[in-house]
This record gives sequence, C-alpha cells and structure tokens, in this order.
Amino acid sequence: MRKGVMRPGHVQLRVLDLEEAVVHYRDRLGLIEVQRDDQGRVYLKGWTEIDAWSVVLRPADEAGMDFMGFKVLDEATLEARKQDLIDYGCEVETIPAGELDGCGERIRFQVPTGHFLELFAEKEQTGKWGVHENNPEAWPEDLKGMKATRFDHALLYGDDLDGTVDLMTNVLGFQLSEQVIDRDNDDFRLAAFLTVSTKAHDVAFIRHPEKGKLHHTSYYLDTWNDVLRAADLIAMHDIPLDIGPTRHGLTHGQTIYFFDPSGNRTEVFAGGDYTYPDHPVTTWDADKLGKAIFYHDRELNENFLSVVS
Amino acid sequence: MRKGVMRPGHVQLRVLDLEEAVVHYRDRLGLIEVQRDDQGRVYLKGWTEIDAWSVVLRPADEAGMDFMGFKVLDEATLEARKQDLIDYGCEVETIPAGELDGCGERIRFQVPTGHFLELFAEKEQTGKWGVHENNPEAWPEDLKGMKATRFDHALLYGDDLDGTVDLMTNVLGFQLSEQVIDRDNDDFRLAAFLTVSTKAHDVAFIRHPEKGKLHHTSYYLDTWNDVLRAADLIAMHDIPLDIGPTRHGLTHGQTIYFFDPSGNRTEVFAGGDYTYPDHPVTTWDADKLGKAIFYHDRELNENFLSVVS
Amino acid sequence: MRKGVMRPGHVQLRVLDLEEAVVHYRDRLGLIEVQRDDQGRVYLKGWTEIDAWSVVLRPADEAGMDFMGFKVLDEATLEARKQDLIDYGCEVETIPAGELDGCGERIRFQVPTGHFLELFAEKEQTGKWGVHENNPEAWPEDLKGMKATRFDHALLYGDDLDGTVDLMTNVLGFQLSEQVIDRDNDDFRLAAFLTVSTKAHDVAFIRHPEKGKLHHTSYYLDTWNDVLRAADLIAMHDIPLDIGPTRHGLTHGQTIYFFDPSGNRTEVFAGGDYTYPDHPVTTWDADKLGKAIFYHDRELNENFLSVVS
Amino acid sequence: MRKGVMRPGHVQLRVLDLEEAVVHYRDRLGLIEVQRDDQGRVYLKGWTEIDAWSVVLRPADEAGMDFMGFKVLDEATLEARKQDLIDYGCEVETIPAGELDGCGERIRFQVPTGHFLELFAEKEQTGKWGVHENNPEAWPEDLKGMKATRFDHALLYGDDLDGTVDLMTNVLGFQLSEQVIDRDNDDFRLAAFLTVSTKAHDVAFIRHPEKGKLHHTSYYLDTWNDVLRAADLIAMHDIPLDIGPTRHGLTHGQTIYFFDPSGNRTEVFAGGDYTYPDHPVTTWDADKLGKAIFYHDRELNENFLSVVS
Repeated sequence: MRKGVMRPGHVQLRVLDLEEAVVHYRDRLGLIEVQRDDQGRVYLKGWTEIDAWSVVLRPADEAGMDFMGFKVLDEATLEARKQDLIDYGCEVETIPAGELDGCGERIRFQVPTGHFLELFAEKEQTGKWGVHENNPEAWPEDLKGMKATRFDHALLYGDDLDGTVDLMTNVLGFQLSEQVIDRDNDDFRLAAFLTVSTKAHDVAFIRHPEKGKLHHTSYYLDTWNDVLRAADLIAMHDIPLDIGPTRHGLTHGQTIYFFDPSGNRTEVFAGGDYTYPDHPVTTWDADKLGKAIFYHDRELNENFLSVVS
Repeated sequence: MRKGVMRPGHVQLRVLDLEEAVVHYRDRLGLIEVQRDDQGRVYLKGWTEIDAWSVVLRPADEAGMDFMGFKVLDEATLEARKQDLIDYGCEVETIPAGELDGCGERIRFQVPTGHFLELFAEKEQTGKWGVHENNPEAWPEDLKGMKATRFDHALLYGDDLDGTVDLMTNVLGFQLSEQVIDRDNDDFRLAAFLTVSTKAHDVAFIRHPEKGKLHHTSYYLDTWNDVLRAADLIAMHDIPLDIGPTRHGLTHGQTIYFFDPSGNRTEVFAGGDYTYPDHPVTTWDADKLGKAIFYHDRELNENFLSVVS
Repeated sequence: MRKGVMRPGHVQLRVLDLEEAVVHYRDRLGLIEVQRDDQGRVYLKGWTEIDAWSVVLRPADEAGMDFMGFKVLDEATLEARKQDLIDYGCEVETIPAGELDGCGERIRFQVPTGHFLELFAEKEQTGKWGVHENNPEAWPEDLKGMKATRFDHALLYGDDLDGTVDLMTNVLGFQLSEQVIDRDNDDFRLAAFLTVSTKAHDVAFIRHPEKGKLHHTSYYLDTWNDVLRAADLIAMHDIPLDIGPTRHGLTHGQTIYFFDPSGNRTEVFAGGDYTYPDHPVTTWDADKLGKAIFYHDRELNENFLSVVS
Repeated sequence: MRKGVMRPGHVQLRVLDLEEAVVHYRDRLGLIEVQRDDQGRVYLKGWTEIDAWSVVLRPADEAGMDFMGFKVLDEATLEARKQDLIDYGCEVETIPAGELDGCGERIRFQVPTGHFLELFAEKEQTGKWGVHENNPEAWPEDLKGMKATRFDHALLYGDDLDGTVDLMTNVLGFQLSEQVIDRDNDDFRLAAFLTVSTKAHDVAFIRHPEKGKLHHTSYYLDTWNDVLRAADLIAMHDIPLDIGPTRHGLTHGQTIYFFDPSGNRTEVFAGGDYTYPDHPVTTWDADKLGKAIFYHDRELNENFLSVVS
C-alpha cells in the first residue's frame, strides 16, 4: 500500500438477463443482495465486507466488465493519485458522488490493456452482514449457496501488459507478486499478478490480443471444503463448469471456475500465498504455463486462453 | 455379509518395472512395504489394515490385475462357498497355503466378466502399522506421500456384467448397492457396484467388450483435504493424472485418478455413501452417465471408458 | 451382523419441554422433523437415513432414554432373536405394529445394565431426505444447523456391564470392538463398545452404579470442519457445552458433547475407526482412561462420569 | 503499514534446556532449524518465511521473551522511526548488525507494558524452505510435526496497556483491530489487538499487573484439519495442553494452546478475520471476555489470565 490504494472495492459487470444474473451471484455464489438503483443496477456484497456493496450487475447487450474500482485511504490520497495519473498522461474522468448509490467521487481512467479502473475514497459502511459489530459471532447462519465471503480480485486480459504493469506499480503503488516470463523470448512477460496487500493478487493481467477483456472475477471462500461445496452446487444447478476443483500453481490458490448465465467467468477460491513488499517476485516460466495455471493437470484447458467476456 | 464374505483382502497387480512400481505404491500412495518373496513379488498394505498385507506387485511384461481376493469369516465359510461355486458351475482352483507368504489356502475362480477372484479365510495378522494394539494413538507419524489408509476396492471391466452380478450376489452374498441402467434399452445394465459391508462398494464392474480388464484399484483417504494433498503430490512428482480432484455421482466419493508407471490406474478417495441390506439400489440413468461418474464435470473424459489395463 | 441385527434404528428420548427439544434436535442438530403422533411424540431423522424416522421425542417429567431399537434383517430374524432372548432368560415384551407410527412389531427386553432395548424388522422407508432415489445429488441444500446425517449410536451407563456384554454378543451377535480394562484389578471391564457393522460402535456401555442411565445419543457429521461448525452453533445459540471440539482415544472419533434443554447429552462426531469380525478387540487400560475418553486433554472433565440422564 | 513497519520479523525466547526446546520448536511445531550461533542460540523459521529465520531460542535460567522484532521497509524507515521513538521519549538502543547472524542493525526500545521491541530493516533472505523460488511447488514434502508455516504474532501481558497502544499506533503506525472494553468501568481497555497488515493481529497486549510478560508466541497453520493434527501430536508426545482445539471470539481464529518444556506457551492457529485501515475497531465487552477468548467454552480456563512467562 505504498501509495494509499487499499483494496479492490467494486466491480461492475454487464449481464444479459438481470434476474438470471441475480440468481447466479446471490443464490449460487451467496453474495448478499443489498439494493437496486434507478438505472436498474443490482448491488451485492460478500458477507465479510464492511463497505455497503462491492459487486454491481448492469443489464446490457454484451457481457463483460464495465470497470473495477479500488478504494484508497482518504480524499487526500484520491486527489494525489488523480494528479499522478494526469501527470503520467492518463485521461482521467471524474464520476460524481452518488452515481453509484452510497459511493463518493470516483476517478476513472483507462489502463494500457484497455480496462477502465477507478479509485474512490468513500463508500457507505454498513458492516459485516449478519453479525454484530460488537461481540461478533463467527459467521451468520443465513448464508446461501457457496457462501462467498468477499469480492477478492479480477483477472483481466489485454494487449499492452507492460504498459499496465508500469502504471499500476509506478503510479498506484501496486507490487508485482507473481509473473509468467518467456525466458526463450527475451523475458517476454505473459502474465502479471499485482497486489496492494499481502494477498497474492488484488488484480491480475494476462497478455491477450484484444483490449479490455475480462477473464474472471473472483470471490473468496474459507476452505478447500467450501470449494468442494461450490463444485457440488455447480453440479446440482447445472451451472457451466470451466475447470476445477483444482489448485493454481501461481498463488497456489484452491479454485474452481464456472460461468454466469451471461458468459462472464466466475472463480471461487480458498487459500493462496501471501507476500510482503520485500519479497522477491515469484516467476513461472512460460514453458511451465500449464502447471502455473492448473497445477494438477499441468496443462491448460482449451477455454483458458480463449474464452473471455 | 450374508454369506460370510467379509472384505477385499488383497489384489495382485502386474507391473513392468518393479522398483518404479514400489516408488509409486510405497512412496507416493504411502502404502507400507511389508515384505518381498522369492518370486520377486512385493507385498504392501495400508497402515490401518490389521492383516499383514493387501497389495502384491508382480513383475510382468504386461500391466493389469492377476486376481483380487476376498477374506471370508473362517475355514468353514471358505469350504461352504467353495462348494457353492462348484455347484454354480464354476471351475475352482485351490491355491495352497503359503503360495502368498502368510496367507492360508485360497479358492480361485473366474467370474463371467473374465476376472480371477479368490476367497481365503486366513492371513497373518500383524495389526495396524505404526500404532500399538493397546492404547493406540490416532495415527503413526512416519507415513509417506498420500498416506493411503487401506486397499478399499477395485473397478473391473468386462463383457458379461449380468453373469458376474448374478454370481457375486447369489453365490457370494454381495449386495447390489448402485447401478447404471439404460432405461431406453430394456434396462440394460452398464455398471454394477457391489458390497459385502456398509461401504458403497467393495468391488464394482462396468460393461466392456474385452474380458478381464482392470479399470483401477482404489485406496481410502480420510478427508477431502487428503485428496488435495494427493493431487499436489501427483503434480510435484509429475505422475500422469487421469482426472480430479472431483466427486463421483455414484457413491458420491471424493476422488482423484492417476496412473502407476506401468499404466495401471490408481484411485485415492475419501467419503462415500453407506448402505445396508434393506436399502434400495441406487440407480443412475445411462443418459446421466457423465454425472454418475464425474459429478462436477457431468461428462466423461476420453480415458474413462477406453483406458484399462 | 452374525445374528441378523443390522443397525441402530431408533431411540426414544424423554424431554421436559417438547418445543424447546424440537428446536434443539431439528434446528440445531439439523435433524428433519418428520411427523408427530397422537401421543404428542415428535419423530425425526437424519437426512441420509432411508427409514422414515429414527429419533422420537416424548414429553415427560424426567429426562432420559425410554428405549433404543435395532433393526433386524427380516421377520424371520425377529422371531429367531425373540426366541433366543426368551431362551437366554429375558422377559420379552411385544409391542404391536403401529404403536410407533410406521413401525412394525417391536420386541422389547431389558438388558442387565437396566436399559430397555428393542428389535424390529419393519419400518416405513421414505428414502434419503431432500435427494432423489434416482440420480441422487450429493446432499440437499435446505439442511439446518449442524446438518447431522444420521442417528449413529448411544452410550449407556449401568451396573452389570458384563451381563449386558454377554447378552449383546452371544444372543444378538454384537462384536466387542473396544473396551477399557483395569489390569490392576483382575481385568475388570469399565467400558464396552459394541458393533454389528464395521463402525467402531453401534452402542456402548460404561459401568456405573445406577441402572438404565443415558450418557448420550450420537449423530454423525461428515467432517472435522462440521464439528467446528457445530461448536460455533453451540456458541451462537448459547447451548450448554460439555466438552469439545476434541478427539476420543477410543474409536478416535472427532467429537463435541453438549446438552439438550432437558439435560440429555448430545454428541455429534466425525471420523472414527472401522472394525471387522476378525479384528482383535482394541483395549485401553484403566490408567489411561482420561486419554481413552478425551485424547487431547488426557483427563476426564468432571461431568463425564457423573452427569447422565 | 502507515509508517513502514511491515511485519513481525523475529522473537527471541528464553528456554531452560536448549535441546528440549529444539525438539519442541523443530520436531513438534515443525519449524526449520536454520543455524546456531557462537552464543549457543538456535535460529529457526517457518517454511513459508522468506527471511532467513524468525525464532531464536536462547538458553537461560528463566523462561520468557527477550524481545520481539518488526521488520520495516528500508533503512530510511528505520532511521525515521528511530527518531520518532526518541522524540516520543523512548530510550532507544542500537544493536549492531550481526549481533543476530544475518540481521542488520536493530533499534531496541521498551514499551510502557515493559516489553522490549525492536525494529530492523535488513535480514538475509533465503527464500521459502524446501521449494524453489522459480516455478515453486505448493509445499515441501519433508516438513515435521505440526508443519507451522510462519511465526505469526505474540500476545504480551503488561500493566500500562494504554501507553503501549498509544506508542504502537501513533509512533509505529499500528492499527487497533480488536479490543476488549469494560463498559461498566469507564470503557477501561483490557485487551488490544494491533496490526500493520490485514491480519487481525501482528501483536496483541492484555492488561496484567506485572510488566514484560509473555502469554504466547503464535504460529500459523493452513487449516482447521491442521489444528486437529497439532492436537493429536500434543497427545502423542504428551505435551502439556492448555486449551483447544477451539476458536477464539476475538479474531475468530481456530486455535490450540500448549506449553514448551520451559513453560513458554505456544499457539498454533488457522483462519482468523482480516482488517483494513478503514475498518472500525471490533469491540468485545468485558462481560463477554470468556466468549471473546474461548468462543466455544464461553469461559476462561484458570490458566489464561494467570500463567505467563
């Protein structure tokens, strides 16, 4: 958190059929539906999140991610980072407070891979869902489906990977925690995992010919048993499975990938390595890409590099 | 246990390279190497097994299963079942005590699917490995690899499935616990899971054009976390993975399949349903075969029906 | 199952306040409330049980167990065991079919420790709760509380332990799987764990000066994670905890003990050793009783030997 | 990490018998013994730690903690915090580089509760133990005992709790994540949990009449199954158990407490809540202290407030 960026704060996803999407994110993932706005957007959160919401579903004609937002420490940090982005050469758009219900002013910019990211300093805090702030119980009893605890990160696909890494690390203070490098090709970087915390990634990017694509949004589960439970629910509700349960080589998280009804890929995962600012970058070699992505299979499935939204 | 058959007692596997096989079953699966005999066979067991050994590896030019043996209650039961088999029309071979070190007389016969099965009443009992019989600790500290607890069952492929089911249930007292039936084809049975205990299966058969084939031998793990550990070891040691970690629909066991260096498939699994003699047969429909076998993927992988040894 | 006794089939518990008891067994343990009868009794079951019900709550002025019933293979077995009991010198009472809704004729007798046990051959079978018999899903989504899967066993306290063990083993075909013996006192037996399956116990007895006491009824959970979940629910709902989460030395089950609102002790547990008819008895020494009961603490808590109902 | 303090970097413990202590921390906890120095001190680390070591055992006549050290971002941060401490009124001692093998200059100071804490910026980095930095496997196979992954935090007892909290938060940038408050006594604070990361605590303090006492050092495990494994090892090796397996109310970590042979308390735990700088303090009320500490029992054991080293 060298530059005051704290964590992934929200993501806005485009969905083709809103009610089907709500079933997916609320009843299957187990996110809490918090509110809807006059644009018809649905706001949800994981039960452990203190902020009022983190996932926004917007009805649209095409699936994908509108933007991902990061919460910063305070208004002063927001102003400073805005100026840094402008100085870096970014076009910066200011979204007024309230455009998303309960969220303060947002600074939106496009990174070289084509994705729209945002910074914001204020969002209504409603506390963890279902437990008291005072003498809190361990968990609430009324969770649904996979009982996802929080929006954790997103994996984004785009072309100018090096440009985005430069912006994220030098302007916003992200740390490169893990990467995939092609040592036979001048250390060409294929993937970059970036963090502002001790988590292995708060956002990740993979090189891809098209700009601005979403590979998946990811939600945290407590245990490998919960990953099994998620897999069972995927089978019971006939949800399209991508791969899993399995483990990633990168970050070593325990994971399963599946698709929402609009074709946006969803991940739930548990575990995963930790990192600190003084830790060296963990590097996977391009010729080990299969194992880096799917540790047990040691080869990519046909979807991983091609199916995005 | 209507007819005194207690449990799977042993399996003899053919392996192409003995020392590579020992690494697989001892160091990766974590079976205990107990002894070797003057034929060059290696005897192993899971640490919870009371009998002296359960898995025998025999060097051979072709992979596969020589025979699977079931332990019966006592000598009287052995004699009675021998006569029943003869009366049923089986050719019965008597293997003298000591042909396998520490094992009493064995009655060998071929079932209609072409597999050689055995019954025996006596085997040296050496107790659980690594814990005392008196005031036993929960588990021994020096286990290796996947820490497989016991040889649990085998899945066998062959042609005359109905013939084998008839023999196993009517002559040997097995119970049909689960099956796959093609309802569009005169209830043609594709798979039969058989038990003499409350386990979902002590042996299983799948219909297949060739006689006498082995799909896999299976070993029990305590938890789904142990299945993950097994998957990690498979990756670390670059063992050929078939599929998993996943869950079966049939029995609902939590499982992973992989191959020994000779091409014999190995399963380790945890969980699984229980059954009793008064329970109805659990039936899966042929058009749900994918989900019956691989509950999460809901489709067979290309190996499942074709790769056997 | 040498004599056709299959499994614990039911237990009838006396409770002081019926609705409080229903909250405990249905909403906290997660048993399914199946029906109530015209005597005001409530019938429940664990979701994996095929029979219509297994736990009966009867409003009464004093807590405790009315009787525990075991299901036998068929009517012929029931008749044979009835005669065996009479020949052994037991007074046998025949309870007509329908006295418990959906249950066939029951044979009731008192064992030397003072407990009333029953045998029965018929009970309505309604299948697992919440999943289809055909192509069954792994588990139902609508389970409550601890999601107990089945009534598993009971631990009973009484004086003439040897008398009860003799009856259970010689007349009813139970196997002594584990015991506690005082080697300094002529191998005086303090505890006996008895099974008719491969489970470490289907019923257990501990020597105690009073006749006919209940130590606890026990319900099976799938995993150690479920034991934690149970412990959390105990804390959240302020249920009186006896001890746990911990492990037993005897059977090595992973366990937690707590009390229903009437003072009947309840156990939920996972894991546990398996046994077969040819396995030697596992013996714990009396001077290791603490570790035998509570493996981690290695000493009894003050309740274990004194608080019964 | 508002002021550049990154994480707990080391703790030096006094032990009465060095070799017994090494058995405890290396063979039971599963820390890696890294080296010994010419003062007879033993250096150990958890396998996931990048720095060369984190736990130092020093032979002494009395058990307890000599000091706990925190790693800061860089030398400039070290100098700045040193000056801040001096400005705050602390007496600051500079320990030259190399006094602990491989560690740079350390700044030592005493907090108002009487404990000696240190800051340092440099320590030799040897990487995770047993896995490569490049294409790292998920875990190393040769871990011992409880397989503790890292030194995680310490709980310290002392008198001037408010003084220490003021220093830790205002001078060193720690965040108060959780606390216990006596609302009937002018919000008198009994316990303070402090973090410089998203972990629920990097160090914690409880009010106690004596200065400078150690309640426990704590080491991270991956799962609740690993807590069970730790409990089993405690039983197998007859290690004095304090309490557990259980869960804390504060932080909700899953835990077990036991003692090293010198009487220093050790904790291993899994799970635990996360926090961010904008999160409100989680407060437990003094009249819920039992549940705050031991969530399942909801009462303190007799050792918790009295046994320290």
